Order: sequence, then structure tokens, then C-alpha cells
Amino acid sequence: MDGAEETLRRDLANKQAAVDAQAVAVRDLKTGGAPKPDIEAAVEALKVLKIETESIAGKLQAVIAGTSSGSREAFRQAVVNTLERRLFYIPSFRIYGGVAGLYDYGPPGTDVKMNVLAFWRQHFVIEENMLAVDCPCVTPEVVLKASGHVDKFTDLMVKDEKTGTCYRADHLLKDFCKEKLEKDLTLSAEKASEMKHVLAVLDDLSAEELGAKLKEYGITSPDTKNPLSEPYPFNLMFQTSIGPSGLSPGYMRPETAQGIFVNFKDLYYYNGNKLPFAAAQIGQAFRNEISPRQGLLRVREFTLAEIEHFVDPDDKCHPKYGDVANLEFLMFPREEQLAGKQANKLCLGEAVSKGTVNNQTLAYFIGRVYLFLTHLGIDKERLRFRQHLPNEMAHYAADCWDAEIECSYGWIECVGIADRSAYDLRAHTEKSGIPLIAHEKFSEPREVEKLVITPVKKELGLTFKGKQKMVVEALEAMNEVEAMEMKAALESKGEVEFQVCTLGKSVTITKSMVSISKEKKKEYQRVFTPSVIEPSFGIGRIIYCLFEHCFYTRASKDGDEQLNVFQFPPLVAPIKCSVFPLVQNHEYEQVAKQISKSLAAIGISHKIDITGTSIGKRYARTDELGVPFAITVDSTTSVTIRERDSKDQIRVSIDEVASVVKEVTDGQSTWGDVKWRYPTHSSTSIVESI
Amino acid sequence: MDGAEETLRRDLANKQAAVDAQAVAVRDLKTGGAPKPDIEAAVEALKVLKIETESIAGKLQAVIAGTSSGSREAFRQAVVNTLERRLFYIPSFRIYGGVAGLYDYGPPGTDVKMNVLAFWRQHFVIEENMLAVDCPCVTPEVVLKASGHVDKFTDLMVKDEKTGTCYRADHLLKDFCKEKLEKDLTLSAEKASEMKHVLAVLDDLSAEELGAKLKEYGITSPDTKNPLSEPYPFNLMFQTSIGPSGLSPGYMRPETAQGIFVNFKDLYYYNGNKLPFAAAQIGQAFRNEISPRQGLLRVREFTLAEIEHFVDPDDKCHPKYGDVANLEFLMFPREEQLAGKQANKLCLGEAVSKGTVNNQTLAYFIGRVYLFLTHLGIDKERLRFRQHLPNEMAHYAADCWDAEIECSYGWIECVGIADRSAYDLRAHTEKSGIPLIAHEKFSEPREVEKLVITPVKKELGLTFKGKQKMVVEALEAMNEVEAMEMKAALESKGEVEFQVCTLGKSVTITKSMVSISKEKKKEYQRVFTPSVIEPSFGIGRIIYCLFEHCFYTRASKDGDEQLNVFQFPPLVAPIKCSVFPLVQNHEYEQVAKQISKSLAAIGISHKIDITGTSIGKRYARTDELGVPFAITVDSTTSVTIRERDSKDQIRVSIDEVASVVKEVTDGQSTWGDVKWRYPTHSSTSIVESI
Repeated sequence: MDGAEETLRRDLANKQAAVDAQAVAVRDLKTGGAPKPDIEAAVEALKVLKIETESIAGKLQAVIAGTSSGSREAFRQAVVNTLERRLFYIPSFRIYGGVAGLYDYGPPGTDVKMNVLAFWRQHFVIEENMLAVDCPCVTPEVVLKASGHVDKFTDLMVKDEKTGTCYRADHLLKDFCKEKLEKDLTLSAEKASEMKHVLAVLDDLSAEELGAKLKEYGITSPDTKNPLSEPYPFNLMFQTSIGPSGLSPGYMRPETAQGIFVNFKDLYYYNGNKLPFAAAQIGQAFRNEISPRQGLLRVREFTLAEIEHFVDPDDKCHPKYGDVANLEFLMFPREEQLAGKQANKLCLGEAVSKGTVNNQTLAYFIGRVYLFLTHLGIDKERLRFRQHLPNEMAHYAADCWDAEIECSYGWIECVGIADRSAYDLRAHTEKSGIPLIAHEKFSEPREVEKLVITPVKKELGLTFKGKQKMVVEALEAMNEVEAMEMKAALESKGEVEFQVCTLGKSVTITKSMVSISKEKKKEYQRVFTPSVIEPSFGIGRIIYCLFEHCFYTRASKDGDEQLNVFQFPPLVAPIKCSVFPLVQNHEYEQVAKQISKSLAAIGISHKIDITGTSIGKRYARTDELGVPFAITVDSTTSVTIRERDSKDQIRVSIDEVASVVKEVTDGQSTWGDVKWRYPTHSSTSIVESI
Repeated sequence: MDGAEETLRRDLANKQAAVDAQAVAVRDLKTGGAPKPDIEAAVEALKVLKIETESIAGKLQAVIAGTSSGSREAFRQAVVNTLERRLFYIPSFRIYGGVAGLYDYGPPGTDVKMNVLAFWRQHFVIEENMLAVDCPCVTPEVVLKASGHVDKFTDLMVKDEKTGTCYRADHLLKDFCKEKLEKDLTLSAEKASEMKHVLAVLDDLSAEELGAKLKEYGITSPDTKNPLSEPYPFNLMFQTSIGPSGLSPGYMRPETAQGIFVNFKDLYYYNGNKLPFAAAQIGQAFRNEISPRQGLLRVREFTLAEIEHFVDPDDKCHPKYGDVANLEFLMFPREEQLAGKQANKLCLGEAVSKGTVNNQTLAYFIGRVYLFLTHLGIDKERLRFRQHLPNEMAHYAADCWDAEIECSYGWIECVGIADRSAYDLRAHTEKSGIPLIAHEKFSEPREVEKLVITPVKKELGLTFKGKQKMVVEALEAMNEVEAMEMKAALESKGEVEFQVCTLGKSVTITKSMVSISKEKKKEYQRVFTPSVIEPSFGIGRIIYCLFEHCFYTRASKDGDEQLNVFQFPPLVAPIKCSVFPLVQNHEYEQVAKQISKSLAAIGISHKIDITGTSIGKRYARTDELGVPFAITVDSTTSVTIRERDSKDQIRVSIDEVASVVKEVTDGQSTWGDVKWRYPTHSSTSIVESI
């Protein structure tokens, strides 16, 4: 039983006990003849407890569904069926047979995406005063050469030697080992342990090692059983050509970050030449996957939202760190992973003070990402922050954590939060020749000792002739220790043997050939390459996990079918509200249209349904789209508003209805807040209906 | 003098007369010893009139600047300098020398773009209940083959035969003719008239005709004077390859529309199989221009916002047509253009009833586009709707109008509004084999007469043997008139001569070979291909024109320099508000930070500036970014809010300031509304300060 299930079972048991206790209290109040308002309040509390119980039970059901691979599949199928049927997404270009790894968002999916992005902008860009930028997808080769993508952004591929079909080499090996381990009962313990090892180190295997394993296991093309080629690297960028000459190769960007790095100088200036500051970008990115799998999770084009926070490498404190230091959530540090343990709830502040998280700024973003995801509706019990293992992390990175969300495909990396040190800015400085650096002006000039090495070129030229240049360069390249040793040797012995790498031998340096000294200098500023801390969000992955976390089923009124519901928070819901005339009737239709107009005017996305379908069916249709509120027109003066999950209804006048819906959908109030202000819609008293 | 200038001069004269009259009124009130409130009210009215006068004078200045090409250039240079210096945009990848036709939006530019897109979604998608979709940029070849882009989305190109540099053939011819006409004093009247004709028909010239003209005029490579190749078509799509095999060619989409067309069937279903409905998409589009010119107006990657409104071709009425029918604005119908006249103010409703605009739905969108653009801040005197000339319009289109905005580059097409009839859906139906059609169910079945032609295959086989099939097909292909004529002939003469095209001769048909009749049938529905009306918005072009229309200069307080101002409406302004402590002081700084926090919490983008720069300089800096409101902290209890254009200031308590700024920036109130509620900030009385 994993952590999430355990917690939910405990919560459920507690909540059920509370329900029982409250039911007793209600009974006692009633039999004791307590005043009606007291009874009503107690009943209302009981109802709230029951709803909370149902909600926990629903979550538990989803978690349990996720624990065995068969029921995971069934749960996923139910979610995906609903998503496809209601056009949350559509395989792209379906009328032409589609293209693997390309999906459209249909109407409700597009609206969810827009809402997630709008909240991202509010939560990160506006609240943190970040600098937004918007760069093109088409990128010239030189930029991606500097970033390393042209040379290293590859997957190892094998080809069916007869048909030419391509496969990811690691996928074939992984599938083979998994299949053997799961189904081959004759597998020796030794072989099994070897295959487990292969699976563990899969990502680290070189082309040669992968090829050797494929050969050793006799793995052939999965579709034809033909022999396979040796693995070779395939670059995952979509290549193109800029302009008509064919001489300017370009690529569709594989990430949005490079557009920010190359603008560092301008952005630093825009920010008044001050650090820290963050730049942010939302945009399309492209990866020409060899063979996309896992539906919406591994696609060839996707929306990234990236932040590059530039900071002084000597001071990674964050002024708002205190706002997140007390947060507690599932973290999975490197040590716990290596020890085979589980993710555990940790206090973020403690993780920093113990050195588990490298610095305050990195931690601040981890905390903000946690708040962002849970606010969207991601279940906090199925969200963990996993630290990169040493072999996953680039050599230059100071520390990396992934926000992983658990869904039916397992734990999925949805946000990467990395301290990339000065790597990116240095790479572009080197390639472009434009220094991407920052300055710290000292309030008072500082006195520093500087090593000064002055080769005496005339002397050196006489002795070394054509090789003089190499000797001069080698002398100038000495570090402080080497130089001071040479100085001491020259002063004591008058000459010294000196290794010149570029000559491949040592030469004799005499006192007259070089002067070495330390001089005191005044420095007015420090010049350095900023570190960059990069939270990078895979928006499509977050949205897919959100779909799974928000999905539940409940029995229809007569109990004969299971109805699907997406319990999106109003913030995320694609359509905030539906408007139905209770029956087909010209007057009600006019009222519905008038309400629709007032909702549109204040920017509330809604759906008006004037078909004659039964009200229950219309509710079910909109529940499946995750519409949180339904307005039913059953008179020409007032209407009812129904909340999706509790199915509670209140009665509100027509003039007020749009502003009430606005209040509960833009986060000013909760449903609980407004519910008390209006009469509930029910012909019998609440007490009787329980 | 063009229309805009004339109107503005008239408005200015009227307004100046009103100022003079009001000034007299104020003087009379003061000398007459009128009560203080009366004097104050009159002075306030005078002030408002003065501001309005200044605003008209500013617009007139901009229009006049636009009329001579030299001052147009100077005006553009002033705008572009400010835009580049304040990072509204940045040439992409500048540290690597940039790439022609690619630009980044920097921080304020990105914010303007986000605001324009958010308003677009509100004005079109939400208010019209459109179905939003979001499709990938990477598009397989088959889709763009069906749409015609693979074969026809080309420009004619010539190459420098020695260096290989590419040029647009029409650009070279255009530049040559313009230069000759402007500068060659020896040009004969005959030659001049020929060149004017060439310029007029430039877009219609074939590759051969263009090549012949280039040769005739002896046009060579502009950079090297080398000879040029013959013109040949260059496809403007960025090509790439999908997947690793190299066998699936793809392109970066040149427009977003195709993603909607291929989803028609699903979207129609989503809309309850009902017409009309509109789908909308915002996204990147790509055109690999041969040699991009005109800065931000002709780029290789840009954001499009497109609407495809699907409608019954037999009923193009629009239920909300009445909302726009009374609008009056500059329209430029085909006839006026051909008659060499100017655009004129027309009433949209009259243009429809006179048949100038083809139908109500097209007109509705023209009206909505007018409201959209003017609400953003586009000057209505420099906005016209120009109808396509017959040679500009595709053969299938029913009617097309472009929203053109005048800027320093001339009249620029920013929105195209086209009735494309059934072309796109038919093209994809044909290519994919999936019928993209709609049904109209009749409320009662309709009786129709249907022609039934039944070839008697046995008889035909005996006579025509191997050619039977061609004869059968030819008989079945007869239209109603032909068939009824044959029936009559067969009945009267027993046989008839019949031309079979596929045989290339006529054959004799006898009575026994075919039966022809008309039968009555009941039809329950009509099946048809919907028409599509497409408003397509070039977001970058709209934004660039907006920059020009919002830009003006005013003298600094001491009159010694010209300050730049972008008078963006609050809706569009990249930063809604700035926050300054009046002097550097810890207490004020804390207040400023507290205000910043409350602005962030309610989603108001703002800029806090705690540098010691003079307040005037800080205002000037933010005026240049188009920030409409500035909060100055000069006490710990209340602050001043200054409006950018009037420079009026009011005093507001610290608790209220964020909500007041929200009120005036999200459109609930105007500055004029709130100004009266708070004391104006001025140490001397208003009366004295005039």
C-alpha cells in the first residue's frame, strides 16, 4: 500500500467516524426538541461531512484503481474515452489517418489549457514581476550548436534492415526485459537479476553497449522479426532551412529557454542592470520523437512554460523564501531513492537547512510550483518532488528536482526545477563572443592583490625563435601557485625547467626572461556570469494528469448507469457555467438568452442548451465537461444555480445571477460562502430530505 | 489632403473655438463673483476641453507626419527607436547577428500581445460562444496538398547567377519602375505610362511575363549587378520531415485555418449537429519569405488569430446583425477603387441592403472587427475596410474585405474577412474521402421529383459489347433536360443518335436500351457543404500599427526636450501602473512594496521603481512604456495616482489604491469617473493653476 492510499484510508476512516457522530448529534437534537435553526445547522454540517466523505472515497477509488496495472488500464480507458468523446483532445489530422505524437486540443481542452496558462501567468509572471518574452520557434543552427542540442539532443535508434522502420533502441531492450521478467517462468535467477540491472542502467548505456545487448538477447524488429541495424544517434530536432538559399539550416526549437539566454544582455539592462531577475516564456516546442508512445504524455509538439531566474552565484537567497519555508509535501531526496525508500512528507525549510535542497531560490521555486499545481487541482498525495540522481544530472548543474505527478502511467515528470549554474550563459558567451555577464558595483573600492606575469619577449625571442609564442603563452597561463614557485626558483637558482605543453617538452627559463610580481590594485566592481535557476513546465503533461486527478464516476439518479464527472476547480473549468430552460418554452428561452448575454459581457465562458433533453441528461452532459455551475431557468424572475459535486441548488434572482457566478468562478468566494446567502432550492425542508 | 486629416482639422478648429468660449465664460464667472463651486466646475470643463484639443492636435500631427514620405520616415524612426530601446521588440538572436524576418517581443511587447489576445478571446470567442481549438504547427504534406499550399503557396524568385543570392522577382521590377518614375527626368511619357501599368498589374504577372520585363529593362542583381536567372516559383512553407524515416514530409503551417477545417466533422457534432457555429484558433504560422522587408510587418513567423464561421449557404443571415447595422466607418468598395475614388464613411447596414457587402454574416464580422480594432486604440480615421478587386479574389470566394490600417508604410492589410464559400471543406472531403457536410432535417418530409435513368444493360451489352460501359456511363450522366429530350425522341421515333464523349462518336440508342422516368420521392433532409466565413487577424501587424497610432511626443516640463508617450488604453497597456516612493526613504519603500504586493494579488501588472531618479524622469520612463497610471508614495497613509495623458493627479488612501487602479484598468470605470470621487493633488487651487 503506497503513501497516498494509506493517507486516504486514514482520512476516510476519520471522516466516517465524524459522520456517525454528527448523525447521532442530529438525532439527539431532534428527539430533544431543539430549536429548528439549531437542527438545520447540525443537518447542514452532517451534509457537508457526507460530501467530504464521498470526495475522499472517490479519490481513494482512483488511487486504488491506479495500483494494479489492470485496473490502471481500465481507469485510464474510462478517462481517455470521455476526453476523446467530449473533444478535450483529438488526434491531429484524423481524417487523413492522423500523425503519431500530434494532438489537437478540442474546445473544452483548449479552454482548460488557456485557463492553466492564464493562472501560470498570474501566479508566476505577475506575482513575481517577471519579464515576459516571446521568441520565434524557428531557430538558426548556431544557437542550438552553442546550447549543445545539435550535437547531443539525440536518441539511439535502430532500423529494421528490410523495411527501414525505425525504433528506439532502448525501448526494444526495455520491452524485451520486462516481458521476460513478467512472463518467462523458466528464467534463471541469475538471468533475471541481470535483466533487472539492464533496466536500471538503461538510460546510461552507450550505443555500443545497447547494440551488444540487443545482439546478445537476439532482439529483432517487433513487427517483422527482421534483423535490426546497429543503434545510431538520431537528432530529435525538426530540421528546416531558413530563407530560399538552402544555406541557412535551422531547427524548430526543442525548448523555449535559449530565446531567453541569448537575450540576457538586453533583459539585464531592462532590469536596470540588477540581479536577481527572472524572464519567462510560454510557447511551442518540438521534439521529433522516433516512436511516440504514452498518448498525450510524449508528443512531437507541445507547449512549454519556462522561467529563467538569473541570480548571483555567491548569493542564492530569496527575499520571499519565508513565504514557502513552512510548506510540507512529498519530497524524494537522492539518498532516499538510493536507499530504496519512498517519498516522504518533508518541511521545505528543513530540507534547505539540512542541505538537501541546494539553496533558497531553488527551494522557493519548488514551493511555488507545489502551490501552483495543487491550486490547479492536482492531488497533493499524488505529487512528489524527486531529486535527480547523480547520473541524471548534467555535470554543470548544482541541483535538480522534478515535480512528478502520479497517473495511470506511473510517476510522470511534469516540471523540472534545475539550478543550471552558469552553463548556458557561458556557452553563448563563448560562441557569440558577446559577454553575457553581470556586474556588482562595490559601495567602496576594494584592494586586491593581482598576479602580474610579464614575459620579456626580446630575451625569449633570442632563445626560442619560432617557438617563442608557445613559451610566452605557457608562461602567461600559469596559475598563482605555479607562478610564485617559479618566482622563488628564479630568485634562488636563477633558472628553472618549465614544461611547455604545446611544445611537448620542457625548456629552461632564466631570470631575465620573465618578471613575476604581485601588485595591489583597487577594484570597483565584481564581474561574473550569473547562475540560472530554471523551472520548466510541460503544460500538456500537467493538463493530462489534471484530467486523471479530476475524473470520477457516480451512479445516475436511478442507479442504472455510471456517470462521468470532471471535478475541475472553477479556475480550470473549460466552461464556467451552463444555462438551461427547464422546459422548452419561449419565455424561458428568452430569459436564458438574456442571462447568456450578461455572462458573456463579464467574460464568463458558458454553454446554453435549449434542446428539449431531460434536465438530468443535460446535467450529466455538463458534468462530463467539468462545468462547475448550472443555471436552470424555471421562472421569469429567478433561477436556480446547481453546484456540480454537491448537487446543491440555490435560488437567485435573474438580475444577480451573472455576478454570483462571477464571484464563485473568479475565486472571490467559494460555493460554501454564497450558499448561505440564498435560499436553497428544494421543495421539502432540508431536515426531511436527509 | 486626405479624409483623416480633413476631419481632424475640422475637429480641432471646433474644439479650439469651444476652448476660447469656455475661457471667456470662466473669466466672466470670476469677474462676476460667482460662487466658488461654479467657477471650479467651469475651470474643470475648460481643462477637459484643453486636453481634448491637445489630443486632437497630437493625432493631426501624426497624420500630417504620415503624409509626406520624408516625415513618414522620421516619424517611423522615432517610433521604432523607442520600441527597440524599451525592448518592445528585439531582432531575434541578435548576439549571433540576427535572422532577417524574425523578431522577439521583449517584456512590454509580450505584455501588449497577451493583452491584445486576451481581448480577442473575450470579444470574439467568449461573447460569440465560439469553439476554441489548438492544433499543432507541424502539418503533414497531405493536408497542405489538399488546401493547395504545396502547389500554389509560392513567390517568384530570381537568383544572382554568380553569388546565388535570391530576390523576389516582383520586388526588383517594382523598385526599378518606381525609381525610374521618381527620378529619371528623361523618361518619355509613353515609357512612364507603361511603367505605371506594370506597377498596377504586378501581382498578376506570370513567371514568363515577369522574366520578359526584367530582361527588357535590363534589370540585374541589385547588390552585384550580375545577371539574374529566369523567375521561378519558390514555396514559402518551411519544410521538415516528421519522424525518423525521412519518408513523411511535413511543413510548418502557413495559417491556422486548416486545423479547423480538418476537424469540421467533430466540431459540427460537438455543436449538436447544428449550424451556424464558429471555431477559433490562435497560434503561430510560418512563411519562409524570400527577402523580408518592412520590419515587423513582413516576418517569417507570426501569430494568427483565425475564425472559421460555418453557415448554411442558403441562409447567411446573422441573429446579431442588428447590433452592428448602424455602425458607420470608412469603407472602400470595389467600384470606388476602380473609379479612382477614396474610401468613404458608409453605414454598414446600407452597404448590405445595397448589395455592396455580400451578406449579413460577412457584414456582422466586419462590424465586430471594426469594434475590436478601435477598442484596442486603432484610430478610426486611419482604419478602412477595402473590398477585394476581382483579380485579388480567389475564384471560389463570394466576397472579401480587408481591414487596412494606415501607418508610416501606407495602408496595411491587418485583418482579412472572406466568404470562402464551400471551397475548403470540399477540398478536404475530396482528398480525405471523409464527407465534411451538414444536414438540415425537414420538419415535414418534402416531396420531390427525381429523374431516374435506368440503362438496360443486357440490351446495351448485345449491341455495344466492350464499349457498353462507356455508353452506360454517358447515359447515366445526362442532365434533366438532355434526359427528357431523349425520352421524348425515343417515344416519338423509337431511336435517337447519342454523343458518347469517351468514345469520341455518337451511337444509336433504341427504346429498349434505356428507361427514363421522373419519380416522386419523399426527402427527409437536405445534405450540403457549409460555406465558411473567415476573419483572419495578423496579430503582429495590428500591434505594430497600434504602436504607431498610440505614439506621440510632448515637450518636457522645462521645454528643452521632446518626451515620447504611448497613449495605450489601459486594456492594452503592458504595465498598468507604476509605483514610486517620492524620495529614497525606508518607510516609503515599505509602503511601495506593500502596494506592489496588493496589486500583484489582484493580477495587476506593475513596475516598482525605488531608484533615486527624479520623479519627472521616472514619469518620463513609464510614459515611454505607455503605463497609464503612476502611484507616487509621498506619505505613509495616502498616495497620489497620476494619469499619463492628462497628467492629472488624485490623492487616494493606501488601502484603496489597488482597487481604484483595478477599477480604471479593467474597464469598470474611466479616469473621468474616479477623478471626481477623490481630491485632486495640487497644493494651489485649481483655479489658480490655470
